[in-house]
Amino acid sequence: MPPKPINFTDKLSKFSEHWSPRLIAELNHYQFKLAKIVGDFVWHSHPETDEAFIILDGNLVIEFRDGSVELKPGELIVVPKGVEHKPYAREECSILLIEPRGTLNTGDAGGELTAEQDKWI
Amino acid sequence: MPPKPINFTDKLSKFSEHWSPRLIAELNHYQFKLAKIVGDFVWHSHPETDEAFIILDGNLVIEFRDGSVELKPGELIVVPKGVEHKPYAREECSILLIEPRGTLNTGDAGGELTAEQDKWI
Repeated sequence: MPPKPINFTDKLSKFSEHWSPRLIAELNHYQFKLAKIVGDFVWHSHPETDEAFIILDGNLVIEFRDGSVELKPGELIVVPKGVEHKPYAREECSILLIEPRGTLNTGDAGGELTAEQDKWI
Repeated sequence: MPPKPINFTDKLSKFSEHWSPRLIAELNHYQFKLAKIVGDFVWHSHPETDEAFIILDGNLVIEFRDGSVELKPGELIVVPKGVEHKPYAREECSILLIEPRGTLNTGDAGGELTAEQDKWI
């Protein structure tokens, strides 16, 4: 059987929890995860890896220590490893995350917003 | 300075050549490349790596030895390493490729459609 297409809209319809990334595909040891977010996340960094965000729906703000960036659908940003950041969305925003297997959503910060890994949908 | 958002539409307006991927971002040793394609590509595989395609505009067909897959905007497919495939687009299609640095567009096939590497836009 050939590999299957993965439709972002279909996959996004399968969950509603915020700040709880769902795994949709793997590329070697990298993972593609969908997340729905709203409000403020915690300041954190990923000391071991860069992290890519692609905006699918809604608007995302990422605060950095030296300024904030606004992102809209059809935009990509790569947060370099070790760089502190804090995602924020005024209204619900859907994003695609690309990062190595095992990357925690809260990075080095931990805490109660730390999501379970490898929740396939 | 915080990292900059990368807008796919803006970047796609900067080139018109077909089958000539342009580098827009790096994530560790992985690369994000935009490509515009039309017509038939060559059968090839990537013996060392999986390869991800995200469709941005238009429709893409990927032929595999055991069947073909049609993809539309908002869809992702991961072609596993070593699996022969042949992209095809009836009309122009814009795609985002995600793969390790150094991955050739023609994989193990080579030939005149082999594109130059690391053409940043």
